[in-house]
Amino acid sequence: MEAISSALSALSIQTEKVVKHAAANSPESWRSAVSEVASSLGLASQNYTKTVVFKPKTAKSATPTPVVLIAKDDSEYNTGAVAKHIGQKEMRLAAPEVLKEFLNATKDDVSALSITKDNAASLIAVLDASLATSTDHFAVHAASSEQTLFMTGAEIAKYLQSTGVKLEVVDFAKLKAEAATPVAKASAPPSSSASAPASTQGPTANKAKAAEAAKIPDAEQIGITVRKAGDFPEWYTQVLRKGDMLDYYDVSGCYILKPWSYFVWQSIQNFFDAEIKKIGVENCYFPMFVSADVLEREKDHIEGFAPEVAWVTKAGSSDLERPVAIRPTSETVMYPYYAKWIQSHRDLPLKLNQWNSVVRWEFKHPQPFLRTREFLWQEGHTAHISLEEADKEVMHILDLYRQVYEKLLAVPVVPGVKSEKEKFAGGYYTTTVEGFVPTTGRGIQGGTSHCLGQNFSKMFDITVEDPKAPEELRGKPEGKLHVWQNSWGLSTRTIGVMVMVHGDDNGLVMPPRVAQVQVVIIPCGIGVKTSAQEKEAIMDACDRTAKELQAAGIRAKADLRDNYSPGFKFNDWELRGVPVRLEIGPKDLEKKSVVAVRRDNKAKTSLSAEGLSSSIATLLDQIHDDMFAKADAEYRSRRKVCEQWDDFTRILNDKCHVVIPWCEVEACEDEIKKRSARQAVAGEAEDERAPSMGAKSLCIPFDQAQFGDITGKKCPQCAKDAKRWTMFGRSY
Amino acid sequence: MEAISSALSALSIQTEKVVKHAAANSPESWRSAVSEVASSLGLASQNYTKTVVFKPKTAKSATPTPVVLIAKDDSEYNTGAVAKHIGQKEMRLAAPEVLKEFLNATKDDVSALSITKDNAASLIAVLDASLATSTDHFAVHAASSEQTLFMTGAEIAKYLQSTGVKLEVVDFAKLKAEAATPVAKASAPPSSSASAPASTQGPTANKAKAAEAAKIPDAEQIGITVRKAGDFPEWYTQVLRKGDMLDYYDVSGCYILKPWSYFVWQSIQNFFDAEIKKIGVENCYFPMFVSADVLEREKDHIEGFAPEVAWVTKAGSSDLERPVAIRPTSETVMYPYYAKWIQSHRDLPLKLNQWNSVVRWEFKHPQPFLRTREFLWQEGHTAHISLEEADKEVMHILDLYRQVYEKLLAVPVVPGVKSEKEKFAGGYYTTTVEGFVPTTGRGIQGGTSHCLGQNFSKMFDITVEDPKAPEELRGKPEGKLHVWQNSWGLSTRTIGVMVMVHGDDNGLVMPPRVAQVQVVIIPCGIGVKTSAQEKEAIMDACDRTAKELQAAGIRAKADLRDNYSPGFKFNDWELRGVPVRLEIGPKDLEKKSVVAVRRDNKAKTSLSAEGLSSSIATLLDQIHDDMFAKADAEYRSRRKVCEQWDDFTRILNDKCHVVIPWCEVEACEDEIKKRSARQAVAGEAEDERAPSMGAKSLCIPFDQAQFGDITGKKCPQCAKDAKRWTMFGRSY
Repeated sequence: MEAISSALSALSIQTEKVVKHAAANSPESWRSAVSEVASSLGLASQNYTKTVVFKPKTAKSATPTPVVLIAKDDSEYNTGAVAKHIGQKEMRLAAPEVLKEFLNATKDDVSALSITKDNAASLIAVLDASLATSTDHFAVHAASSEQTLFMTGAEIAKYLQSTGVKLEVVDFAKLKAEAATPVAKASAPPSSSASAPASTQGPTANKAKAAEAAKIPDAEQIGITVRKAGDFPEWYTQVLRKGDMLDYYDVSGCYILKPWSYFVWQSIQNFFDAEIKKIGVENCYFPMFVSADVLEREKDHIEGFAPEVAWVTKAGSSDLERPVAIRPTSETVMYPYYAKWIQSHRDLPLKLNQWNSVVRWEFKHPQPFLRTREFLWQEGHTAHISLEEADKEVMHILDLYRQVYEKLLAVPVVPGVKSEKEKFAGGYYTTTVEGFVPTTGRGIQGGTSHCLGQNFSKMFDITVEDPKAPEELRGKPEGKLHVWQNSWGLSTRTIGVMVMVHGDDNGLVMPPRVAQVQVVIIPCGIGVKTSAQEKEAIMDACDRTAKELQAAGIRAKADLRDNYSPGFKFNDWELRGVPVRLEIGPKDLEKKSVVAVRRDNKAKTSLSAEGLSSSIATLLDQIHDDMFAKADAEYRSRRKVCEQWDDFTRILNDKCHVVIPWCEVEACEDEIKKRSARQAVAGEAEDERAPSMGAKSLCIPFDQAQFGDITGKKCPQCAKDAKRWTMFGRSY
Repeated sequence: MEAISSALSALSIQTEKVVKHAAANSPESWRSAVSEVASSLGLASQNYTKTVVFKPKTAKSATPTPVVLIAKDDSEYNTGAVAKHIGQKEMRLAAPEVLKEFLNATKDDVSALSITKDNAASLIAVLDASLATSTDHFAVHAASSEQTLFMTGAEIAKYLQSTGVKLEVVDFAKLKAEAATPVAKASAPPSSSASAPASTQGPTANKAKAAEAAKIPDAEQIGITVRKAGDFPEWYTQVLRKGDMLDYYDVSGCYILKPWSYFVWQSIQNFFDAEIKKIGVENCYFPMFVSADVLEREKDHIEGFAPEVAWVTKAGSSDLERPVAIRPTSETVMYPYYAKWIQSHRDLPLKLNQWNSVVRWEFKHPQPFLRTREFLWQEGHTAHISLEEADKEVMHILDLYRQVYEKLLAVPVVPGVKSEKEKFAGGYYTTTVEGFVPTTGRGIQGGTSHCLGQNFSKMFDITVEDPKAPEELRGKPEGKLHVWQNSWGLSTRTIGVMVMVHGDDNGLVMPPRVAQVQVVIIPCGIGVKTSAQEKEAIMDACDRTAKELQAAGIRAKADLRDNYSPGFKFNDWELRGVPVRLEIGPKDLEKKSVVAVRRDNKAKTSLSAEGLSSSIATLLDQIHDDMFAKADAEYRSRRKVCEQWDDFTRILNDKCHVVIPWCEVEACEDEIKKRSARQAVAGEAEDERAPSMGAKSLCIPFDQAQFGDITGKKCPQCAKDAKRWTMFGRSY
């Protein structure tokens, strides 16, 4: 390690960031060990390298020159293509002895840093171009399976050059794509049981085994390599990156929203913005910065946010006299101005909304869309003369949120009210639309519409002369009325929920109404025997069809790339979840028809070219309805009524939500959480993919009737009289 | 001062922020003295208090109890109404002797702090409610006209309470509104000559005199109180605040965009977003944070931004291991990912845009919309295979920017290319649309579309295999092509330019296509003799007309508030610049017509109620065209061709742009700036409203023909051969 340190510092590569952790004996255990330590240090921990050593075929008399291949841990390569590219033959994985002899390393600690000035002459290093040029930080073994340091890809390249090793920078993705022949479809085998078998093996071995089981046999490496039901976190990451929704970013907890996902957000904006304008909401923009004074005005409210507030303390090289915070939400930012702007009951209602980003510098493990340090949302803040008027708006907005999920994203949600414990800090009551991720059985809060009551208006002194006050109270404090306020927000979390609910082992499945491309048109049946004229006719037909659909308002695209096979294109667009694929070949031209393949259920039909835009429009609506119906049926079947405590944790462990006749006592809620957590821990099969967390109340659904008459029912946990049916579950 | 300090610190009111400055002998000189000092300290300096002392009518034998009225300096009050409200009679301004005797103060240093425990018993304090509840910091005289400290409104209230003075908190605005009778229109007198007369008086006296001259006699205080041509900075501030475009914010350099201005921005977004989608640009969102490494990659480029970069160094109470910057612009944020995403010429063109905010922590005096620490914009970043393709896009985008100004905002601009000196740092060439503010004669850069050439692609290694490279160079460095890049941005500065160009002495004049309310309908002719039935008929007609116009897609609003007179409403909507006012009274009902009054030129016509929406739509287009034509004629008349150096500075001082046949030599540009500045300083009539800055090149207009044949012309500054006609001027 000392030798490495000095070598690195000679290259001005910082090495402070060496972390020590539990010994790793597999890529998975390494990731898990590092991420535990790294997140507590606030380090980016998503990026790992892998180092694989090969021994190429060599004449028997000659000493072999091992090839050390270094790449991002999720890079895929075609060994044959790499060997060919660097002029080597039949590269085979090197035996442990070779690692020891040439690199003084084992498979668990080998890394770019195993190559030194001393051994460089007897090795060839192959570095993936996408790593070599990356400015992201990557975890690298630091000469031991218990130590890791973080270097950018460019620093790794610099280090390797400094050793004098023969270094080949190779674009793995490109080599691989060039090597790809028309791609055979990965047939998804029935998903394995999600709960790992009880076993006497240690958790690491268990995890490695589960990871192995999660792999999709024969899956083309360009596609998703793990099953959704097998390794959900890994599946989610792959589906987002390979489906082109986002890219990782070199500031931890922040992600790049690529056009494919931003389009979804803009679709939501278009719908919601038009709807709120109908009820008189106006858009505005408040600054992202908040002074400490203002931020900290409402103590209860800010308490929850304070540990996550990001502070700007410097501008250029000067320290600011008074640091400013970046808004984590805007209640305290906006309400001092509401106090100023609202001078009379005639200024009411005041209904403002903004489309902005907020920052919550969380230290928990970030998750794209679900938990990110900066996220996009809208926040509405309104003030009303009466509770009645405020109530009405709360419900109207909540219904718009329901529509965003159900009508745009085809994701079912349960609208309801939060328990006292779960409501917005400082508010009066909170309504919510609750979603469900079937794979994990966890609930997810989809969007919340809060009635703040008069709490903030009292704090910020937002008052008007009560127009109903008797004459003698006019102008006196008793004649004042504190306004009734609401706030409501919906964020890019919507996109994460949509992906988790609909995606499958082949990638994204986009709901048609928010898909940037709804229909992709692919020329087929062009072979070596096809005449130039015939080929042109097919290409033209694809292009024409795209234009015809576009003219009818359908987002269609013809994929006329001629360096890829139809099979490659099928996979590519499946990965990105395009709802409908149209295939046009010589026979389709003859028959004046096209073949349509649905992404959601793979169903294939032949459609007449005549009136195609109208049949496609119908098909897209049908796909939306079917996707919603499927997800809705799933969610319904996973909401189980439970009236006996003995059933509670079992239902939970079956990855279901539990609906109980509940007493609505806060202490009982705490008890439910504790007891459901405890019993789960006692079980055998828990690992981080089926968390042992206790259940909390998700919401008290507005539709109580579906669960039957509650009269006379007792709370299963405490046996007190039940008030309302309440949905409990594990959640994100 | 010591006594005050200890009194304040006993109340835990911080007093570190005492600033010393030149003695002030008027509100204006105080503001100017404080703002000079405050801005260098990074303090907010927009907010000032005023303190006015009255002596109420008292029985001769009794000792008078002076009333000390404390308010924001721009608050307006009705003395009679205040007196009545606090139960006093005939309050008259107190004589200097009274101030001395009761408060030990003069008019130049009297403030809330003049009230102390010792004199409190013999005084009454009246505090405006909007100040008492404000969390903004306000400048307050600190027992001397040479010292100022900053307290929040709430702290002022707290201090006053602590003295034991009899304290009345009164809502001035409300009292005033209640006291308001139908408001007489302020008749705008012909504007006074803009250049102040030469004089032997000091600059402060000059300024005070100019301020006095700028006042609009008899202007209702609710309206704009200064002339646009007289005190432009003050006019601009008032028009934005009273026109409801924005509000000041408690973080200096940041402003709240209220719905009235945000609507303009959203209109621009709608137009521009649809247009760029037509040419294949996709929207995305990159995080607002940038790591230091990435930010500083392109040295030339970042050099200009570095001193203004805001740094987040803390989250909650922990210091970040590595501070992150907030993006000042996104070139270096995005291009590392472009290098990753662009792997083949088939990935080109890549055309991304984002709608976001950026932060440039400038220390110069902030100006709403024009220079703010956070601002909204769009930034497009594209990569192309060839310069030709990049060129084409640069020009297309620039033309969209021209359309935003001319077709939406009715603001004329001159499209052209920047000189080498003025182009974007690190770019290849910069095109611009240049606007003009007639009142100051200064140019303003409206939006820029840059071709970055290959500079950034070389820096960030964004390359593809050149599809035109000969076979033998494939895979070799010589076969690589660095992509050609563009970036282009348009910000909320657009709104500031629009206000400056069109606004008049009565307030905003909104161009119809971006006005949130295009038509306001006001019931008229309702008096004490009007029957309830008649009144209802008028109200109904107004409401019905609004609905009819709305149904035709016109943004119409009926102002049916019955606590305000028509005159009050006329002024109110004029202030906000609504393009058309419709008046409906009993006679109009009879005649089945309405009276339409244009905001831009005050023209009044009677329109038939029949087919109103179509005649209004025509009228709105006419208003747009007339506003543009007027502004365009003004701008054209202020672009003067100049071929003799002797005329150059004179033209400039006449508040015009100067178009010269220019040599395009950078040293000559420097010389022009120096010489035009020097001569201006030598002149007499300069103050900060007609700045003595030198002229820089604004652009080389694309339309060269309008200025005639340049063949054989010489540069008037250096006598070298002229290349192109170039527009010079003072600018924002």
